[in-house]
Amino acid sequence: MDEQVYMEEAMALARQAVQDSEVPVGCVIVRGDKIVGRGRNRRETEKTALGHAELEAISDACKTLGGWRLWDCTMYVTLEPCPMCAGAIINARIPRVVCSVRDEKCGACGSVCDLFSMPFNHHPQIEYGLLAQESQALLQQFFEYLRQNRQNKPKWKKPTA
Amino acid sequence: MDEQVYMEEAMALARQAVQDSEVPVGCVIVRGDKIVGRGRNRRETEKTALGHAELEAISDACKTLGGWRLWDCTMYVTLEPCPMCAGAIINARIPRVVCSVRDEKCGACGSVCDLFSMPFNHHPQIEYGLLAQESQALLQQFFEYLRQNRQNKPKWKKPTA
Repeated sequence: MDEQVYMEEAMALARQAVQDSEVPVGCVIVRGDKIVGRGRNRRETEKTALGHAELEAISDACKTLGGWRLWDCTMYVTLEPCPMCAGAIINARIPRVVCSVRDEKCGACGSVCDLFSMPFNHHPQIEYGLLAQESQALLQQFFEYLRQNRQNKPKWKKPTA
Repeated sequence: MDEQVYMEEAMALARQAVQDSEVPVGCVIVRGDKIVGRGRNRRETEKTALGHAELEAISDACKTLGGWRLWDCTMYVTLEPCPMCAGAIINARIPRVVCSVRDEKCGACGSVCDLFSMPFNHHPQIEYGLLAQESQALLQQFFEYLRQNRQNKPKWKKPTA
């Protein structure tokens, strides 16, 4: 099946995240021609530091397939994985990641660092660019919305001890 | 309270992991003088690539405290975090990690790489050595047991496509 179909599903999940005021990131994991895992950002709604799209999709795929090794699967994700998610991809032995756009500030697959090329015990391949314009536009819209919203709100401050 | 008490609790969790034939790693997260999160390895029993002690403890602490930012917490863990767990520590904004021993093969906090010193948006401090002998001995016993067990079993092979 055309790979774009899988990335469109990941984009649909990213759009669902926006509905909950979450950073729009979506992810699917595919084995053969079947989607075996789905995930999207839920950090704010679930109030957990682990609430990233890739972790949810990996957890879902492990449940679907009944094991923690996803070595015949491909991940489709709308934004470059952070260190936590890149590490989870290594731990799950996912061999190939297809990604829309890079994350220059937090990306751990070529931007801030490249965990996939370091001497860990698994070296996933990553490809960028599929539906890049759509993903970039959705992210830009979201952060523009956040900036506008912040101007109308008192600035949030870190509590002192 | 003496920090050793917290690491002893993490060691107790590591020993529980061994009971399920899991790599013995345990973790607690402390705020003030109270343990707010506990975790241990469950990768094999739960059949998930995300089943590491640190992720379970972070998830538990986020639930206990009702938010994803753990910036006034300290993590006590019996083995150096892998990239996934080191990334989760960054994402959870944990400022300080106390660790028993390094993991030369998979550690992402100074061994294979040092995610905490890279230009991400948070830079946790890490200290090694608390209960190091106990943790090292438990890990060595476990891997010795695995080696002996493997000699009596047919070698597991990766399935072909």
